[in-house]
Amino acid sequence: MTFNATDHLHMAHALRLAERGLYTTQPNPRVGCVIAHGDEVVGSGWHQRAGEPHAEVFALREAGERAQGATAYVTLEPCAHHGRTPPCADALVAAGVARVVIAAEDPFPQVAGRGIEKLRAAGIVVGTGLLRDEARELNVGFFSRIERGRPFVRLKLAMSLDGRTALANGESKWITGEAARADVQRWRARSSAILTGSGTVLADNPRLTVRPGEGFSLSPPGRGWGEGAALAESYRAGRRVVAPLRVVLDRRLRTPAGSHVLDGSTPTLFLHGAGAAATDERLNRVEHAVVAERDGALDLAAVLALLAARDVNELHVEAGARLGGALLAGGLVDELLLYVAPVLLGDRARPLLELPPLASMAERWRLAVVEQRQVGADWRLRLRPLPA
Amino acid sequence: MTFNATDHLHMAHALRLAERGLYTTQPNPRVGCVIAHGDEVVGSGWHQRAGEPHAEVFALREAGERAQGATAYVTLEPCAHHGRTPPCADALVAAGVARVVIAAEDPFPQVAGRGIEKLRAAGIVVGTGLLRDEARELNVGFFSRIERGRPFVRLKLAMSLDGRTALANGESKWITGEAARADVQRWRARSSAILTGSGTVLADNPRLTVRPGEGFSLSPPGRGWGEGAALAESYRAGRRVVAPLRVVLDRRLRTPAGSHVLDGSTPTLFLHGAGAAATDERLNRVEHAVVAERDGALDLAAVLALLAARDVNELHVEAGARLGGALLAGGLVDELLLYVAPVLLGDRARPLLELPPLASMAERWRLAVVEQRQVGADWRLRLRPLPA
Repeated sequence: MTFNATDHLHMAHALRLAERGLYTTQPNPRVGCVIAHGDEVVGSGWHQRAGEPHAEVFALREAGERAQGATAYVTLEPCAHHGRTPPCADALVAAGVARVVIAAEDPFPQVAGRGIEKLRAAGIVVGTGLLRDEARELNVGFFSRIERGRPFVRLKLAMSLDGRTALANGESKWITGEAARADVQRWRARSSAILTGSGTVLADNPRLTVRPGEGFSLSPPGRGWGEGAALAESYRAGRRVVAPLRVVLDRRLRTPAGSHVLDGSTPTLFLHGAGAAATDERLNRVEHAVVAERDGALDLAAVLALLAARDVNELHVEAGARLGGALLAGGLVDELLLYVAPVLLGDRARPLLELPPLASMAERWRLAVVEQRQVGADWRLRLRPLPA
Repeated sequence: MTFNATDHLHMAHALRLAERGLYTTQPNPRVGCVIAHGDEVVGSGWHQRAGEPHAEVFALREAGERAQGATAYVTLEPCAHHGRTPPCADALVAAGVARVVIAAEDPFPQVAGRGIEKLRAAGIVVGTGLLRDEARELNVGFFSRIERGRPFVRLKLAMSLDGRTALANGESKWITGEAARADVQRWRARSSAILTGSGTVLADNPRLTVRPGEGFSLSPPGRGWGEGAALAESYRAGRRVVAPLRVVLDRRLRTPAGSHVLDGSTPTLFLHGAGAAATDERLNRVEHAVVAERDGALDLAAVLALLAARDVNELHVEAGARLGGALLAGGLVDELLLYVAPVLLGDRARPLLELPPLASMAERWRLAVVEQRQVGADWRLRLRPLPA
C-alpha cells in the first residue's frame, strides 16, 4: 500500500495522541488511533492505562456509525486476543471500517500479525509501516522487552565539560543546573524502573522517585518541550503517573538502614547475591530477590532479564562510574542521556565511566548522536552506542 | 549619533571586507572600509598586508571624486600618524567626505582618538560604536595585545565525550575526524603564533605549520564556513598567508634533534630557562630566548608578555594537559576551542586538563559558550572562561 499526505497527517496525529500516554500506560505500549473519512476526523483516542480500553475503542466510540467505510489509523497493530479487554481487531471489523493503516506491527507473541490477519479476513484493506520508526521509537522499551527479552536501558549521566561527575572528595551537587535536573524527572517518569547501585546509595542517598513539582513546574512552555507538557497534563488531568519501580543492585546488601531507598515510599526491589542474607528489618518495606553473580558482581544480563520478566520497558539508570561502565562495556546500554555543564573540574575529579583500558584507538566506543539540545545553561545529548 | 538601517548595512559590509584579511594582515588589524552616498556604494576596500595601503586608501581610490560629501564607514578608527603609510584621517579629510562612521576606536597609543580628533577638526561629522563588538571580535588578538599587553590565547583541545585526549598508552591519532582536523588548520592560519610544550613535541613530534591543502580543500562550500572560504580565497588570490610563528616552551631544551619543530621550515622560537645552554647544533635553524622561571616552570605570564612584544595577536595553543591546565589555572586562557568526538575512551585514558583539585563545587571553572557547531561527526565548541 502506498500512503498519501492525508494518511501521513492522520498517522502523525495518532502518534501525538499515543504520546499522551507516555507516563501512564505502563506496562502497556503507548498507542493512538484516528478514524477518518478523507481529511475529516470522525473519531480519535489513545490508550491511557493498563486495564482500561485501548486506543481503538475510544476512537470507535467517538466515531459511532460514522466508522462505517472509514479509515482507521493505529500506531500499533490492533490486538487479536482476549486480554483484559476484548480484541480491537474484532471491534474494527464490527464497526465496518473499510481500511486500516498501521504504523508498527505488534511484536507481542499473542498478537504478532494475527490482528492484521483478522482484519484482512474480514475484507478490510490493511496497510502497515507508515511512520513505523516513529511508532517504534515511542515504545522503544516495550519493543525491547518483547523482542529482546530485556528493557531498553537508558543511562543518565551528568558531567562537566571535561567528563567529570564529582569532585575528588565526592561532591557532585550540583554540576548541572535546575533545568537539567527538572528534565531528568521527566525521563524518570516515563521509565518503568529506575536502577542504581549500592555505591551510589551509600555516597548520595538518593530518593529515585519522580517529584511532580520538579517534574513539570519548571518546564518552559515553549516549543520542543512536549514531554514536559504531557507530564504536566497527566498530572492536571488526574491521570496518575505510574511510579517507576526503584531497583537497587546491592550484592552484599550493604545499604544502611535509614537510606531513602528503604523507606517504602514507592515500590522498591533490591537485587542481591545468594550469599547475602536478606533477613533483617532494613528490608521490611522493600522487595528483594537473588540474582546470579559473575566475576564478583551481579550478572547484569540476568538483572535485565529479571526486570523484563517484571514488565520493565524503559529502564532509567542513575549510577556511578563503575556500574555505568560495566553496563556499557557489557553492551547493555541502549542510550546515554548525557547532561553536560559548561564547567571544568580538572583531572583529579571523578571520571564519567570506568571502562576497560583500550589497546588501540580502533577499540574506542563509538556513539551516534540521536539528539542534542540546550537545557538551561547545560546541554542534553542523547547518544546510542554503535556496533564495535 | 544615531545610526539608521543604511548605516548598519554598510558597516556590516565593511566588516565582511575586513574579514578577508583574516589570514594576511598580521601583525596589523583586519580593517574594512565602505564609502557611500545613501544606499549607493562608491568605494570599498580592505587592508591586505602590513606595509601595504590601509582599507580607507583602497576605498578612496575607487570612489575618486565621488568621495566628496559621502559617508565613510570604517571598522577601525582611521590612523592619524605617519607609519609605513600616510595617515588615513588626512586622506579622508582631503577627499572631502562629509561623515565618518567608525565601529571601534583604535586602542593603539599612537592613534587613540587622534584620528577622530583630526576628522572633527576638519568639520567632518564622526560617529563611533556602530557594530563595535563585532569589530573588536574580528581583531580580538590585536585589541588584547595593545590593551592588555598579551595575546588573545586560544587553547585548542580535541577530546572524547568523556573528556579524554589520548589512550593510556599515549595514542591520540585520531580521536576527531578529518573535518575537525581540517578546521584546526584554519584556526592555526589566523593566529600569529602556535604554542606548544616540549612534552607534546616529545610525545607527538608535531609540525605545527599551516597546511594549505588541509586548510581549505576540505571546507564544505555551504553557509557558515566563512573562515574556510576566506582562507581558500587568500590562497587562490595569491595572498600569502602569514605563517604563524612556532613557539616551543622547552625549559630544559630537551627537544631531540630531528624533531619537526627544529627543521627551520617556518619561523620558530624556543623559549627556555636560564639554566639551559642553547649552544648546540640542534638549535641552528630556530630562534631561542630565555624566559623567567616560576615554581619550576617557565613563567607563563612572562611568555605571553614576550610574545605580545613580538606582535603576537592571537596565540593558538596546542599542548598537553599540563601546559593547557597551567594556562587555564593561571587565568591566561581567553578561549577554548574544543573539538568533541562522539566516542568514549574510559577512565584509564588521558585527562583533558590537569587542574588543581577543587575543595568545593563553588570553585569549579565556569565557561560561557560562545558558539557550538557540528564539524563532520564531531562538535566544535568555543568557550570563554567566566570570572571566578
